[in-house]
Amino acid sequence: MTQSANRQILLVEKPTGKLSPQHFKMAEAPRPEPKDGEVLVRVLYISLDAANRAWMQGATYRSAVEANSVMAGGAIAEVIASHAPGFTPGDLVFGDTGWQDYAAVPAKALVKVPRIDPITHLLSVYGVAGLTAYFGLLNVGKPKSGETVVVSAAAGSVGSFVGQIAKIKGCRVVGIAGGKAKCDWLVSELGFDAAVDYKSEPVFKALKAAAPNGIDVYFDNVGGDIFEACLPLMTMHGRISCCGAVSAYDGAPPAHGPRGVPGLIVVKRLTVQGFIFTDFNDQRETALADLQAWVKAGKIKVQEDIVSGLENTPQALIGLLAGENRGKRMVKV
Amino acid sequence: MTQSANRQILLVEKPTGKLSPQHFKMAEAPRPEPKDGEVLVRVLYISLDAANRAWMQGATYRSAVEANSVMAGGAIAEVIASHAPGFTPGDLVFGDTGWQDYAAVPAKALVKVPRIDPITHLLSVYGVAGLTAYFGLLNVGKPKSGETVVVSAAAGSVGSFVGQIAKIKGCRVVGIAGGKAKCDWLVSELGFDAAVDYKSEPVFKALKAAAPNGIDVYFDNVGGDIFEACLPLMTMHGRISCCGAVSAYDGAPPAHGPRGVPGLIVVKRLTVQGFIFTDFNDQRETALADLQAWVKAGKIKVQEDIVSGLENTPQALIGLLAGENRGKRMVKV
Repeated sequence: MTQSANRQILLVEKPTGKLSPQHFKMAEAPRPEPKDGEVLVRVLYISLDAANRAWMQGATYRSAVEANSVMAGGAIAEVIASHAPGFTPGDLVFGDTGWQDYAAVPAKALVKVPRIDPITHLLSVYGVAGLTAYFGLLNVGKPKSGETVVVSAAAGSVGSFVGQIAKIKGCRVVGIAGGKAKCDWLVSELGFDAAVDYKSEPVFKALKAAAPNGIDVYFDNVGGDIFEACLPLMTMHGRISCCGAVSAYDGAPPAHGPRGVPGLIVVKRLTVQGFIFTDFNDQRETALADLQAWVKAGKIKVQEDIVSGLENTPQALIGLLAGENRGKRMVKV
Repeated sequence: MTQSANRQILLVEKPTGKLSPQHFKMAEAPRPEPKDGEVLVRVLYISLDAANRAWMQGATYRSAVEANSVMAGGAIAEVIASHAPGFTPGDLVFGDTGWQDYAAVPAKALVKVPRIDPITHLLSVYGVAGLTAYFGLLNVGKPKSGETVVVSAAAGSVGSFVGQIAKIKGCRVVGIAGGKAKCDWLVSELGFDAAVDYKSEPVFKALKAAAPNGIDVYFDNVGGDIFEACLPLMTMHGRISCCGAVSAYDGAPPAHGPRGVPGLIVVKRLTVQGFIFTDFNDQRETALADLQAWVKAGKIKVQEDIVSGLENTPQALIGLLAGENRGKRMVKV
C-alpha cells in the first residue's frame, strides 16, 4: 500500500441468505480529497453491530447499503484535513465512515467526541450501545424497582448494559444468551440474577422458572422464537422494548411473526415499542452523565471485544451475527 | 314458562373450532333468589361482542367461561328486588348477568345507569363500544389533526365510532370492512374518507391507495392478515391500538403471528399497545360528556342492530363473528 492509498472493504453482492466472506472484497483506492464542506478522516475503530446486516436487507432508519460500494459503518476517526468550519486536524469524531482507512465525510454527518481514555468506550458504553441500552430500557421499558426485566442477546454490547442498568434500578434481571460460558459470566461477573441458555434449554420453561412473577419489561434484541416465548410470560401492562430483531437479519425474511400477536398484547394490555437511541437526542447529556457516573462507581462493567485489522472486519461481523462476541465488538483499523 | 321460571342459555361445550348453535342449549331454572348483598335483576338487553367468543378460549381480562354454565355476557337490566344497599326496584343497571331472563348478581358487580332514551344507547355509544372507541383511539392511538387513521371491523360497533371520532378530530379516515354495502355505508353515511372491502380486494394494495401518506394510527379489531397488511404502511412513530383480534377468536388459535413483528416495529419505531376501556376509568365522565355532545350535535351517528328474543342470542353471536352485523348488535330479551 502506498502512502496515499486507501484500503476499502466493498460489499460486492447483497446476501439473500447467510452473510459470508464472499459477499465482501478488499480493494484499494486513492486516498479521497475532501471537497468543500467535507472533512478527511482516518478511521481508528469501526463499530460492528447487528444492524449492519439489516442495512443490507433494505431501508431501515437509514437507506439500504448497495452492492459494489464501500460497506457502511460507524466509526471513531481522527480528522486529518478539514474543508469545513469547526473541525481541525487532530479532532476526534464519530460518523459513518464506512469500512476503510480514510473517508471524506460531509461535516454535518460528523459528531465531535472528547478524547477520553480508553477511546473505545466512545463506541461501547458512551456510544450507540450504551445510549441504546439506556434509552431503550429507561425511556421505553420504564422499569420500576422490584420489577422483573428480561433481556435477550444479553451478553452482547447492548444487552450487557441493559441488564446492568436494570440492576442499578433495583430490578430482578434475567438474561438470555447462547452458551453456558456467557450465561455464567452474566451472573457471576455482571450481577444478573439469572441467565437462560437458549442453546441448551427450552426458553419458555427456563424463563418461567427464572421469572416466577412474570416479565414486566422485556428488552428485545432478537425477535422470533424468543419474542414468542416471552409474550405469554408478560405481566399485565408489561412493556416490550423493541431494539432489534437479529434473528431475522441474517437470512431470508422470516415466513411468520410470533404467535400471540396481537392477541396477548390485547389481553395483557402490553405496550410494544420500537425505538432507536436518536429518538431521545434531547436527553443525551443526562444519559451520558449517568453512564459515566455508573462506570466510575464500578456499577457498570464495560466489556469490549476488539478485533485487529481492517481486513478482518467482514469475519468479525459474520461472527457477531453468529453470537461469538461478548460485549461490544469493534475493529481496530 | 311459569311466572317464576328463568330461561337460560347454557354453553354446553367449549368450541374448539368454529362456534355453532350446538354449543348452546336453552334451559329453564327457577327464578333465582338474591342472597344478602345481591340484587335480583330482569335482563332487558344483552350486549353481543366478539370478546364473548374469546372468553371461551381461556382467561382474558376476565376468567374463562366454562362448559355447562349460563353463558356470560353483559346486559342492561332492571332491578326487581334488592338485598343490597343503594339499589331499589326500578333502578337500571349494567352488569354481567349472563344470557338469561333473570339473574341474582352481587351488588358490587353492578353499575347503576341513567334511564336515557333510547336505553339501548347504554350498550352502544355510551357503553363498552363507545368508551372502547373513545379511549382506544384518543388515549392509545393519539391521532393528530391531519393524520391518517385506519380502523378494521369498521362497520362494527367499536369501529363505526372510532372512524367518526377520528373525523371529529380532523383525521383522514379509512375503514376496512367486509362487503360493498358496508363499505358504501361507511363513506356515504358515516363520513369515512375511504373504505377497503377485504372480501373483494387485496387489503395491502387497496390500503396503500386509500392511505397514500401512510397510516399514522391503526385501530386494530381483528389481528391476523389485516394487521400484517397494515404494518408496512405505518408511518414513522405510528401507533397501533390493539383492541381485539377477532380473526383469532372463532376457531383454533392461529399457527403464526403477523410477519414484520418485531422487525417493522423497530424500523418504524411504532408503538403497539393493547388496552381495555376500563384502563381509563378515571376519565370516564369526560368521555361520556364528549360522546353525548357529539351525538347531540349529529357528529356521531349511532347504528344499532337489535335482535329480538333470548332464544336467538347464540345465532346472533355466531352471526356477529361472521361479520353480519352493522353497528352495535344486542339482543332484546
